[in-house]
Amino acid sequence: MTRVLFAAKPNRWEEYREVLPAALREAGVDAEIVQLGEADPATVDWIVYAPNSALQDFGPYTALKGVLNLWAGVEDVEGNRTLRAPLARMVDAGLTQGMVEWVVGHVLRHHLGMDAHVANPEHRWHDAAPPLAADRPVAMLGMGALGSACASALAQLGFPVTGWSRSPKRVEGVRSVTGEDGLREALGGAEIAVLLVPHTRSTEDLMDARRLAWMRPGAVLLNPGRGALVVEDALLEALDRGHLAHATLDTHRVEPLPEGHPFWSHPKVTVTPHVASATRPATAARVIAENVRRGEAGEPLLHLVDRSEALA
Amino acid sequence: MTRVLFAAKPNRWEEYREVLPAALREAGVDAEIVQLGEADPATVDWIVYAPNSALQDFGPYTALKGVLNLWAGVEDVEGNRTLRAPLARMVDAGLTQGMVEWVVGHVLRHHLGMDAHVANPEHRWHDAAPPLAADRPVAMLGMGALGSACASALAQLGFPVTGWSRSPKRVEGVRSVTGEDGLREALGGAEIAVLLVPHTRSTEDLMDARRLAWMRPGAVLLNPGRGALVVEDALLEALDRGHLAHATLDTHRVEPLPEGHPFWSHPKVTVTPHVASATRPATAARVIAENVRRGEAGEPLLHLVDRSEALA
Repeated sequence: MTRVLFAAKPNRWEEYREVLPAALREAGVDAEIVQLGEADPATVDWIVYAPNSALQDFGPYTALKGVLNLWAGVEDVEGNRTLRAPLARMVDAGLTQGMVEWVVGHVLRHHLGMDAHVANPEHRWHDAAPPLAADRPVAMLGMGALGSACASALAQLGFPVTGWSRSPKRVEGVRSVTGEDGLREALGGAEIAVLLVPHTRSTEDLMDARRLAWMRPGAVLLNPGRGALVVEDALLEALDRGHLAHATLDTHRVEPLPEGHPFWSHPKVTVTPHVASATRPATAARVIAENVRRGEAGEPLLHLVDRSEALA
Repeated sequence: MTRVLFAAKPNRWEEYREVLPAALREAGVDAEIVQLGEADPATVDWIVYAPNSALQDFGPYTALKGVLNLWAGVEDVEGNRTLRAPLARMVDAGLTQGMVEWVVGHVLRHHLGMDAHVANPEHRWHDAAPPLAADRPVAMLGMGALGSACASALAQLGFPVTGWSRSPKRVEGVRSVTGEDGLREALGGAEIAVLLVPHTRSTEDLMDARRLAWMRPGAVLLNPGRGALVVEDALLEALDRGHLAHATLDTHRVEPLPEGHPFWSHPKVTVTPHVASATRPATAARVIAENVRRGEAGEPLLHLVDRSEALA
């Protein structure tokens, strides 16, 4: 029997206590699920892991075959030097789908100028039609699973999309650019820019004053990626001097965003509470079960994290 | 030479004075464009027509080959008994595209609960993720060119869509229903209902108290179709007693919506100023020019209106 440790905040278990055993059974894995403190670490085969769990030292887990992250983001675990076993990120269809819905929804919100209709205390009948999507270029920064899916959905709706990534990506209807020149070109050509790059040492503070200045006057920034991608003071400055029209931020350096933070009350900032992409237990449990099955059968794990940069 | 009368409000001509002659030339039509009062009506071959034009009596236009409507809506002209020549509606790619953007945008706005984030004066960090689109059924009432395009775009984003129309329609990913039973089924199964049926004698007051009551408790109504489809008092009553959660209305019985109308200040109503679908002159001019070319070549016109119901 395979022993699986569920290491996440206690309330998380409530969401998985039914779907995870069911998914493991469906995958044909004979597994016992234990909680932190319930079993000798040396006997644990797999850890289902949330990076905000109490478990931070993987040293005692001497027989560990792999860590299966519950989150898409791995920045709080990939640099953990006590972890020597393979690490797999969560790539959940529900997670990608949720991100597509948030990104397409907020791109259309800004594109259509919805806010002026939703709150219109002076009852203005201002019936100038917005431009069509074909005349509203969008930059997608980051073209991994999430960024590619969002770029593709926006392109299908008619938006001209430029996707920026480390290596060139082929996505139907999306122009691919790379490198610092490509970033400048993507930001300079877009009226709406979306941040979906992972948070690594090289993307920390990606949107600093210099790169925010590359954006078009009147452009809008959406950040459903990671709070640490944006230099907050530089963003506030760009909004205050009118260079950028708006920022809609789903991720923040500290979450929940502290009361009193200037983003909360800034008229050009919309805060959404990290809801763009939430792991859905039913689909996530199937991803985890499939990886346990693969590992036990000696097959390669899905969604393995390349930790070379994080550990360099 | 073909004589084309441009009959619309004078400011409209400004938008067409360059693109319409260019489109006719491109289509290979040798045409002269005249304005109201500039030519003997008996010498006019074609009328490019906006239903709010000063021209309402087509009697004197004895040689008329056809009326080419500038609007998608024909309810203000199709019943005109002085018109004996064929009537073509505007089906403009820009118009369909604009409608898709408005409908997808507002469906996602309600689906994601955006308004609570856009205006959040108490800075609430309420991070419950919304359900995925797959769990948010949508009803599309009307499956003509506009309704089908919107239903298809929503289905591609993952929404389960039921389309209601007079005759069954085949659109990939959209369940087709017809008749009064089908309407009841579509409305009863949906959390968001979109009105895109044309305004005819049989659709006037379509959404009355009885049919609004068929909608699910907490559902949302979007009306980018025609104001006359909705019984306003019945809608206000359904919102006030909490049966419906919200109505977002782009079309109204009187436009601009008069100051003092209860929709303006109702907390559960969003008014957008008839911007969902605007004819774009550059693409519309090409549709008109193609129809003039067809008519002159003895080919059937595109987008002919069946006036049998309106004249019955």
